[in-house]
This record gives sequence, structure tokens and C-alpha cells, in this order.
Amino acid sequence: MEKKIKIGLFGFGCVGGGLYEVLNQSKLLNAEIVKICIKTKGKERSIDASNFTFDKNEILNNPEINTIVELIDDADAAYEIVTEAFRKGKNVVSANKKLIALHLEELIQLSQENNVSFLYEASSCASIPVIRNLEEYYNNDSLSKIEGICNGTTNYILTQQFAHGKSYEEVLAEATELGFAETDPTLDVDGFDSKFKLDILIAHTFGKIVEAEKLLNIGIRHIKNEDVTFGREKGLKIKLISRAEKIGDKVIGFVAPHFVPADHFAYNVENEYNCVAIQALFSDKQFFLGKGAGSYPTASAVLSDVSALQFDYSYEYKKFKSGRDLEFSNDFLARVYVGSRNKLTDQIEFENVEESFAGLEYNYKIGWVKFSSLAEIDFNKREDLFISFFSEDVKFENVNDESRVEALESAF
Amino acid sequence: MEKKIKIGLFGFGCVGGGLYEVLNQSKLLNAEIVKICIKTKGKERSIDASNFTFDKNEILNNPEINTIVELIDDADAAYEIVTEAFRKGKNVVSANKKLIALHLEELIQLSQENNVSFLYEASSCASIPVIRNLEEYYNNDSLSKIEGICNGTTNYILTQQFAHGKSYEEVLAEATELGFAETDPTLDVDGFDSKFKLDILIAHTFGKIVEAEKLLNIGIRHIKNEDVTFGREKGLKIKLISRAEKIGDKVIGFVAPHFVPADHFAYNVENEYNCVAIQALFSDKQFFLGKGAGSYPTASAVLSDVSALQFDYSYEYKKFKSGRDLEFSNDFLARVYVGSRNKLTDQIEFENVEESFAGLEYNYKIGWVKFSSLAEIDFNKREDLFISFFSEDVKFENVNDESRVEALESAF
Repeated sequence: MEKKIKIGLFGFGCVGGGLYEVLNQSKLLNAEIVKICIKTKGKERSIDASNFTFDKNEILNNPEINTIVELIDDADAAYEIVTEAFRKGKNVVSANKKLIALHLEELIQLSQENNVSFLYEASSCASIPVIRNLEEYYNNDSLSKIEGICNGTTNYILTQQFAHGKSYEEVLAEATELGFAETDPTLDVDGFDSKFKLDILIAHTFGKIVEAEKLLNIGIRHIKNEDVTFGREKGLKIKLISRAEKIGDKVIGFVAPHFVPADHFAYNVENEYNCVAIQALFSDKQFFLGKGAGSYPTASAVLSDVSALQFDYSYEYKKFKSGRDLEFSNDFLARVYVGSRNKLTDQIEFENVEESFAGLEYNYKIGWVKFSSLAEIDFNKREDLFISFFSEDVKFENVNDESRVEALESAF
Repeated sequence: MEKKIKIGLFGFGCVGGGLYEVLNQSKLLNAEIVKICIKTKGKERSIDASNFTFDKNEILNNPEINTIVELIDDADAAYEIVTEAFRKGKNVVSANKKLIALHLEELIQLSQENNVSFLYEASSCASIPVIRNLEEYYNNDSLSKIEGICNGTTNYILTQQFAHGKSYEEVLAEATELGFAETDPTLDVDGFDSKFKLDILIAHTFGKIVEAEKLLNIGIRHIKNEDVTFGREKGLKIKLISRAEKIGDKVIGFVAPHFVPADHFAYNVENEYNCVAIQALFSDKQFFLGKGAGSYPTASAVLSDVSALQFDYSYEYKKFKSGRDLEFSNDFLARVYVGSRNKLTDQIEFENVEESFAGLEYNYKIGWVKFSSLAEIDFNKREDLFISFFSEDVKFENVNDESRVEALESAF
């Protein structure tokens, strides 16, 4: 039943190189990389030049190649490659969260029209098999919530800040030097990467496609030592959490820093590790942890997709039918902490203030705000403000909280 | 492609009743329970009597029924039902760890001969999708280690002991009253349940079928308050760990209490939760957590298997080819703690003793022992002894430790 997978690989960076090695070492898989398309000429490569081409059409027009593995950074170029691959009847494995978050509906449709598979496990949480499990294992369960740490770079930075009391700038500089952060870390530290991943997770959890721009992403760029100190004094850590919840016929979702206590699922998830927690009606609480970055862990997820193609596996998108009736909403209340070197007068409109601290050098307020009012502020550009949420403290004005899907009482 | 699943259900206890409700509530699945076979007559049932039969053949001989879901306690009766179902060309979903651990090789062969599927996700760790992921997701990766908490009853007891300083007997009595433990808790507290599950996990992790009797299972029946106190003073908890590791061409595996520190994967896994941690060459460290017992969580795993049958899914047993060359071994050294009210003179043969404590009421020793020498002692019957391992402290005499599969250095 197994068919030979003949791969055209786009990109030979960290993950592409990892895949090449992993494929060579894994003797269990009947797959072969036929050709690798790269962009940069004249760069020293670890394998023979005959493996490479600079012309994407040499791969796309090669009828021997039945599978495209797309591992490039550029989402626009990836879009061209992937859509053309579909039209040529080739299966596609991609790790490109931006491509997928921005074009999911169209890509699903095009792959189905051309009767090919489109798999992208590595696009969310790298090595954690979350999409496959959402698709196949929780496909008959009613999921009410998905939350996780979906970005290794920011989790590394936050972990180091809390562990060693170093400043954000200090840790970022170290991380860049070590290759743990990009030279331009915007996508990671401002929460865009986490948002794209959340968008993909929402689609597979609730069957709802949300335009990525509707999901608010607040990053960690403006975290100050005082915010870290506040957390440490209260026994809390700060984690950049991607979260989404279904309440009645509404779906909410956003990415933001959260203060988490010691018994929170994300508290002990450190450094480059990612995690996902799911709340399901029948399966109840489920938790997955694995490396969220790195050449081999990410390549292993790509490999699993390639392996699944041997059996003509494709995602079913079973929940998309019921997901159509869901509406995305920012219409809820959240309890937040806002810290600043400036006086916190009217930058943030609090519904009520629970705590207000004014010091010589630092100020903070804690209280409930309308989430929709936050969506109007570009926190990633507001150097004066650091905002952090509290995991449990989200509530709804217009929706009866009772309608939140609770796990049935389980007769243990 | 989906076909209607017509189920003959055996057993209508906690999980069977849960499955009935879950099936009725999940609108996504094209499946129906045609008939339920039960043993006990005259018992009040929550659904109409017309659903039930007391004659297994009424189900096995019904050509309309294409799927048997077997959820009874009795492994011998289950064996008769399952093998007959295979011969009648029916797919089988089972949650019966004892049945599977004792007959796996034969059951696989018989199901394959009859060209039917045999799925049993709920048999290990209930709601955690571990078998499916081992089979499908890590099928091309090289796994070196699998460890977990696979029994909810003992984890509940240990959690309550550590949280409230209560004695084993006290917590067990409470647990029995609450229905968290069976009236005869032997299978759980002596580690048999954990062992059967480990046996199934070993098969799907390494492709090696080990006779269950070869796996040593030491339970928690003889834990004393002093053992708990020792752990608490050192910041350690005690967890009943099922563990297996591949070293070179050897596989080791056993179930026993372990002292685990705060940064151990199992430390925060409490009450009825189960967990599984995997070490893989490419995916690196992976961790899963979910409820290891309970009507709905277990039924949800059964439901996932039923759902997979719609697409004619069956396990591939891809690793069984390489697993044949592996040899099961008890030939290693382990560091253990042994506590007793009696003087610890020569009950245990230590290779070297690192710590020895003698008090008025309690004594303990810590040191290295040959694991094979422990296998000769029936600890579950030795009321005077409590033995606990330390997670990292296992080493090999005859195998070069260097050969333990290490994760490749990952370029993050």
C-alpha cells in the first residue's frame, strides 16, 4: 500500500537541513529528496551541489516528484510555490505558519479541488503533534478551549529573565548571538508568530477560520525588570500565551503575556519548549509538551507528515461544518496588569481598578478592562506600557457564562 | 468514504455507560450501538431493556454488527469474545489491558489473518492518545525511552498521602468509599494494571513483545508514613512509574515507586491524571498528560478508535520488524531506597550502600542493587519492606552506557 515519496524540497536552512539528515537516518521511511530549491547562490552547503537548483520550476515541472516540502521563510514566495504545486497534482507539506494563517481557506479549497494532500503539522508548535490529534483523535469530541505556548524564542527570553533576573534587552542580545532569536525578532517578540499558529489551531479546534488580523497579538518587547519583579514576588511567571475559547456560538482568541501561578499548565514549560492544553467535553483536560523549535524537532514533524502521505492521509476538516455557525468576538472583559514608568492616568480605560501602585520609578494598575478597548491600542509600539493578563480572569458581558462548555462530571 | 459503524457492545459499567452517553451526544460520528451484552441479570439499568442481551452470540452472530466494543473486566471472557469476533470478520475496539498484554502477538496475528482492525487506545492511559501517536506520529523516529504514570487509583492515593499526610490505609479506605478504588485493589496497588499498560506501550514504542510476567511490578501497598516523610523532607514526591528504555539491543522495563524531584515530568501529575514522557532521537522529549480513568475520558478514547474505523484504520506495527532483534533484560543496576520498621540487615543485597539510617521506629538504606536480584523478591507480599527507585539512577553493567540513544544536538 505504501508508495514511494519523491520529494522536491524548498529551503535548506535549519529545518530543511535537519530534514535531510533525519530522512537519511530514519530507515523506516520510503522517501527520497530528489531536488532542493534554494535562493542564495554562492553559499557553502553541506551536501553536493548536484542536489540543488535555483529554479522552482525544475521541481514543480518534474513529474517524478510527487511531494513538495516547503520550508522557506517568505510567505509570498511560498504561496506561489504551494498553489502551483497543487495545480500540478503534487502533495504539499509546509511549516509556514504565516502562509497558512493568511490563506488557509483558499489553500484547503485548492488542494481539495486538485485532489492532493496539504499537511502542516510543523507549522504549529513544531514537534508537538497537535494538529494531527485535533484532526484525528479529538474529531468527535466537543472542544471548548485551547491554550498554549507556541513560540520558543519568547519563552526562552522570559525563562532566562525569570531565572537570572536579567533585563529583556540583555537576554535578547544573548539569544540573538546564540542564534536563538532572529536579527529582526519582531515576528517572535511581538507575538505575530504565536498569532499565526493560534489561527491555525483555532481552525482545527473549532472549525472556524478567523482572519489573522482579527486576532490581537501583544508581545513581550516592552517588559521591564519591575514587571518581572512583580511576578516573582507573587510567585508568578510571565508566559506568552496563545489562547482561544468557544462560548456559546462565539469564539474568542488572542496572544498576550500572562501571569501564571505555579499550578498553571505553562508554569514549568521553559526555554524553547512549547505546550498546548485542550479542554474537551469528554476527554476533559489534555496537555502536550515538546520542543517548539530546533532543526530536528521541527524536521521530525515534517517527517511525520511525509510519512502520512504514504497512506494518502489528508486532514478531514470535519469540524468546519459546525464551525461555520461560530462568530469571532472581542466582546469580553479581561483582568489585566499594566505596568509603566509613566503615571498610569488614562492610557487604559479600566472598568474597575483593583490595585493601583505608584512608586518613584514604576507604576502599575490591575483591574478589569473591555478587551475590545485594548484592541484599539498598538501595545507592541507603546514602549511605555507593559500589559499582562491573568489566565482564569476572562469573562463575558453579553454571553451567559453558564454556557461555557464544562466537562461532564466524570465518574472516576 | 465513511461507513456506518454498527456496534455490539460488551459491558455496560462505568466506561460502557459513558460510551453510550458520549455516542449519543457526539453528533459528528456516524455510529450506533445495536446491542449491549451484559452479564448480571436483574440489575437496574439506565436505558431500556430492549437494548440488552445476555447471550454473546446474539451479537457475534449478527451480520448487521460490524464492530465489537469490548469493555468487560474478565480477560478470559474477553479473549473468547474478541477472537470469535475476529473470526466473524468484525473489527474490535478494546480497553482490556490484561487481555492485550497477555495475548497481543496472537491477537494481532488473528486480526490480520481475518483482515479486520483491532484498536485499543483506551487500554493504556485512558484518555491520552499515546498508542495512536506512537503508531502514526513517531513511526519514523527512533525512540529510546518511555515512562509514565499509567494508573489513576495509585496516583490518587499517593497524591492524597503527600498532600494531607494521611496514611496509605486511611486514603485507600476513603478512595474505596468514593469509588476511586476497587474493593479488591490488588491489580492497581500492586502495579499489575500499570504493568499490563507498560507491556502494551513497550510493544508500540520499541516493536518488542515482552511476556508480561517478565516485567517486574512493585506496587505501593506497603508504603509507610515514614517513607512519605522522607520524601517530603527532601522535596521529593513518590509516584508509581511505568518505565522502559532501549539500550543498544536490550530493552529494560519495570513498574515501581519512584522518588521524583520538583523538576521531574511526573511531579505535578496528581490524582487521577496519567502522563507519558517519550525520548526520541528527532522529536526529542515529548510529554502527554490527561485523565487516566473516569467514565467519559476513557469512553472518549474508545470513541476515537470507533471513529478511526470509519476510515478502516488499523495499527501498522511498523517497528515490529526491527523490534524482533531486541532482547528483554533485567541485567542492570539501580539505585534504590528501602524503608522498613525492621532492621535492614540482609533482606536486600546492596552492591554499595550510600546512606543508612537506623531509628527507634524506622530504618532505611539507599544504595545500588542488581535489579535482577530484586526480581527474586516478591515485594508486594513483603509487608516489612517499601522500595522506591530514583528516576535517573539506572545503569548498565554489560552494556556500554554510551550506546544509549541521545538526542542529536539540536541547532535551535
